[in-house]
Amino acid sequence: MDWLTQDIPSPDQRYLLAAVARQQQLTKPTGSLGALESLAIQLASLQSTATPSVNRTWVSIFAADHGIASAGVSAFPQSVTAEMVRNFVQGGAAINVLAEQHGAHLEVIDVGVAADLQGLAIVHQKIAQGTANFLEQPAMTDTQLAFACLAGQQAVKRALKHHSQLLIVGEMGIANTSSATAIACHLLQLNAAMLTGAGTGLEEEKVQEKALIIQQALNKYEDIAAEPLKALQYFGGFEIAAMVGAYIAAAQHKLPILVDGFICSVAALVAVRLNPELKPWLIFSHQSDEQGHQRILEALEVSPLLHLNLRLGEGSGAAVALPLLQSACLLHQKMATFEQAQVSQA
Amino acid sequence: MDWLTQDIPSPDQRYLLAAVARQQQLTKPTGSLGALESLAIQLASLQSTATPSVNRTWVSIFAADHGIASAGVSAFPQSVTAEMVRNFVQGGAAINVLAEQHGAHLEVIDVGVAADLQGLAIVHQKIAQGTANFLEQPAMTDTQLAFACLAGQQAVKRALKHHSQLLIVGEMGIANTSSATAIACHLLQLNAAMLTGAGTGLEEEKVQEKALIIQQALNKYEDIAAEPLKALQYFGGFEIAAMVGAYIAAAQHKLPILVDGFICSVAALVAVRLNPELKPWLIFSHQSDEQGHQRILEALEVSPLLHLNLRLGEGSGAAVALPLLQSACLLHQKMATFEQAQVSQA
Repeated sequence: MDWLTQDIPSPDQRYLLAAVARQQQLTKPTGSLGALESLAIQLASLQSTATPSVNRTWVSIFAADHGIASAGVSAFPQSVTAEMVRNFVQGGAAINVLAEQHGAHLEVIDVGVAADLQGLAIVHQKIAQGTANFLEQPAMTDTQLAFACLAGQQAVKRALKHHSQLLIVGEMGIANTSSATAIACHLLQLNAAMLTGAGTGLEEEKVQEKALIIQQALNKYEDIAAEPLKALQYFGGFEIAAMVGAYIAAAQHKLPILVDGFICSVAALVAVRLNPELKPWLIFSHQSDEQGHQRILEALEVSPLLHLNLRLGEGSGAAVALPLLQSACLLHQKMATFEQAQVSQA
Repeated sequence: MDWLTQDIPSPDQRYLLAAVARQQQLTKPTGSLGALESLAIQLASLQSTATPSVNRTWVSIFAADHGIASAGVSAFPQSVTAEMVRNFVQGGAAINVLAEQHGAHLEVIDVGVAADLQGLAIVHQKIAQGTANFLEQPAMTDTQLAFACLAGQQAVKRALKHHSQLLIVGEMGIANTSSATAIACHLLQLNAAMLTGAGTGLEEEKVQEKALIIQQALNKYEDIAAEPLKALQYFGGFEIAAMVGAYIAAAQHKLPILVDGFICSVAALVAVRLNPELKPWLIFSHQSDEQGHQRILEALEVSPLLHLNLRLGEGSGAAVALPLLQSACLLHQKMATFEQAQVSQA
């Protein structure tokens, strides 16, 4: 697992400064494109180029099941994880529509779905038929954790092979808001009630039950150090560990990352705690409707681009934000300068 | 001017209810696409269709100059209005890049630029070489106001002739935040200090001077009734009046509208005060960095989609938000239902 803490390059200051200078020459009041200017400047420094681009965006959706689902923490039955993987393959899910809209490449990786998915046109890296129930034992073994993180690294290698300019990872896994909530509570030393939300749509009473179940698990492992890999191993899941691996591997290879919602932000929190140099490589796409998300973003000290009350997962919120990054890059590249257009300056 | 208060159709309740029902059948937890679900439902009811679409979006940019510019209320010289019109024609402005990105049709209308623009490939409807300075006299005459509003109606007729599905209007006019601020203060009976902002980028001290100038004008006309057409006539400008006309004409012809930033929101406020049935036809794209915008949106009781600190005008913020509407429509149309995908429900 040593690779997870290996060096991540710093953003390129030369291209950052050049991009700042170019933004001041474009035919608009400086700063008037707000967050789009910051995005163009950030992407220029991450991609080490004067012409940042996110035309080739790679979307990896990691799917896995969770032993904790048997405790009744989700509004949907566990079978939905496998059913949604089939829906991804058939092109009927939200992320399919959004990836097609924006010309992004989409792949699905089975890292631990509790069903036989052989024969499906996905990447097959099943680690187990779901994690163990963390109320009874740690969600995964050391070896399983290592394999899950590696699955993320391998997705990044495929993305790089296709000359991708931006990475989105997403997740599908019934009960994975419970895993993510437990991880975040353990790392941030918060009570479950602070972060537990409705997930796929639990009613208020069921949210309270879910929080009690998560608190029970937090109490069980309260002597475990609040360390990122421990949190991942004890609370799962395979898809969250894969996303942690993908985030770190992407940054190690200078591939900028657009982060989706609550679960992705928890993976980002774990990854940043493991390797703080990751942080400038992460662009946070949105603040979701899931109750704990705002606090995770605050812990990371980041401001997301969108507030649209999304709470679907699958990388969908990041895909919704993708055209804003495309706009930022196109404006940076294509707008005329004051000199070119013979427009007077302030 | 009677046409401005003529009937605006109501959104179609049958298609609204059908869209709500379809959103509940798509393979996602109901509500999990947040604002994108609401947008799809709203557009279905406005377009009277089961398959709302914004693929054919029409962008009209109205350009005009303002007599108040001579009072030094802008960071840029008045010549920039005409220079930016030339930049639009050459394709170098932000709105050009964004319209091309999203496949929207862009036209520019001169309703009162203080320069000779003959020969340029724009719509020529110049009413005067800029408005009068409202510190000295009303910005425009009755007749000029009527022509300006008509220019907006005529843009809508062109949009309809091309089977447009959505309208964006934008503006270019040095000093037009001063006009817009004066209009809004007069209508909402607020002091200039409450709404005056930096416009294209005034420094703090200059913002205070600008507020004093606007307050002087508000005081001069304090006996004028706080009526929408009076506010338009006294404080201008031609492009703002054109946008008021465009908004009302679009809704009268069942063409949904995506509203840009501060100045467009002031035009929307005027138009809604004139004809309250307009309101459901307006989708507010973003809250800008201009100081008074939030208060205008509150007066309209609307929530915009984006908060990206944009403050450019030209319809650019609406164009930045356009792909979110496209996503909403595509998701509504293309996602599989639970039954089609054989996915279990909650």
